[in-house]
Amino acid sequence: MSTKRIAGAEIEKLIQLLAKVPGLGPRSARRAALHMIKKKDQLLTPLAGAMADAAEKVQICSVCANVDTQNPCSICTDPRRDSTTIIVVEDVADLWALERASEMSVSYHILGGTLSPLDGVGPDDLNIKTLVDRVVGGEVKELILAVNATVEGQTTAHYITSQLEDLNVKITRLAHGVPVGGELDYLDEGTLSAALRSRTNF
Amino acid sequence: MSTKRIAGAEIEKLIQLLAKVPGLGPRSARRAALHMIKKKDQLLTPLAGAMADAAEKVQICSVCANVDTQNPCSICTDPRRDSTTIIVVEDVADLWALERASEMSVSYHILGGTLSPLDGVGPDDLNIKTLVDRVVGGEVKELILAVNATVEGQTTAHYITSQLEDLNVKITRLAHGVPVGGELDYLDEGTLSAALRSRTNF
Repeated sequence: MSTKRIAGAEIEKLIQLLAKVPGLGPRSARRAALHMIKKKDQLLTPLAGAMADAAEKVQICSVCANVDTQNPCSICTDPRRDSTTIIVVEDVADLWALERASEMSVSYHILGGTLSPLDGVGPDDLNIKTLVDRVVGGEVKELILAVNATVEGQTTAHYITSQLEDLNVKITRLAHGVPVGGELDYLDEGTLSAALRSRTNF
Repeated sequence: MSTKRIAGAEIEKLIQLLAKVPGLGPRSARRAALHMIKKKDQLLTPLAGAMADAAEKVQICSVCANVDTQNPCSICTDPRRDSTTIIVVEDVADLWALERASEMSVSYHILGGTLSPLDGVGPDDLNIKTLVDRVVGGEVKELILAVNATVEGQTTAHYITSQLEDLNVKITRLAHGVPVGGELDYLDEGTLSAALRSRTNF
């Protein structure tokens, strides 16, 4: 915006805040603000209400650390879900992605990040103790470690495994391999080598 | 989202509404919602407030049809602006773009679209009468027609000119030419030919 004032403070404020939303920059924030203002009754007012509602009601699940408007969350309280299998993820976004992709109706545990000594993130900063407690608590039969295939993700997976080695729980991880639709030519050597090693019958 | 319920109704509603914001799709709406929820105090709550404020206070300027939180708008009431020159634009977004680009401190008039008989948009659907009234009213010396360089934009410009031909007002339009930073090779023939015709001294 130029130093000349071209719109009221409320509109400027709205644009400034929208520019902080991931996916929107300063330019698209202006476009979004204008669109919302033009669609005041269909979009701006309902969105303001939905945000206020969400801000008021959202909470962190005390069992799995999912975000929801109830505690324990919709997933932990769903009686149709298998609570003996827990998928361990870094972030809520990963939970959402797996739910979209998978037919499995299981439970989750959100770590809230990965171990990263350089950034000062140690085991106590993640939800690892609550995970161990859930396993110690009893009925968990399998933990699927669905952390990212990064150094930090794998370090975290190893640490979790070390914490659980005395407990009678099966620990699995996601398969490495060629992405569906992917071209071999563009794949890195690590992935290709992993896909070869884990080859399956045709 | 799958049919399995993975988050409360308030969060689903928030995602659905965010997906209607231009610049965000279903996927980035989920990402945006999650980010906002995590930054509840810095982003979600202030944004809900800013939207409610904007929705309550925003109005259309009765002089130039700009959107603002006051009527007449900040531009029309700014005593430092030259009210004898009016830039005529299709949309508020064009006004904002010109304000960012230009050092001119002038007035504006927003048409609210362009003439488009096929879409049933006639002169009475645009803010043309209020423009003529502003010119008839007196002090306007120059109208700069900053409509888009499209067929509809140019048709609208011609129509406005025809409505004002008996009045003593200078009517200008934006120059056609090579965009700054543009490469000749990629330009269409119409633009190149216009740029040649309107060549200036080096």
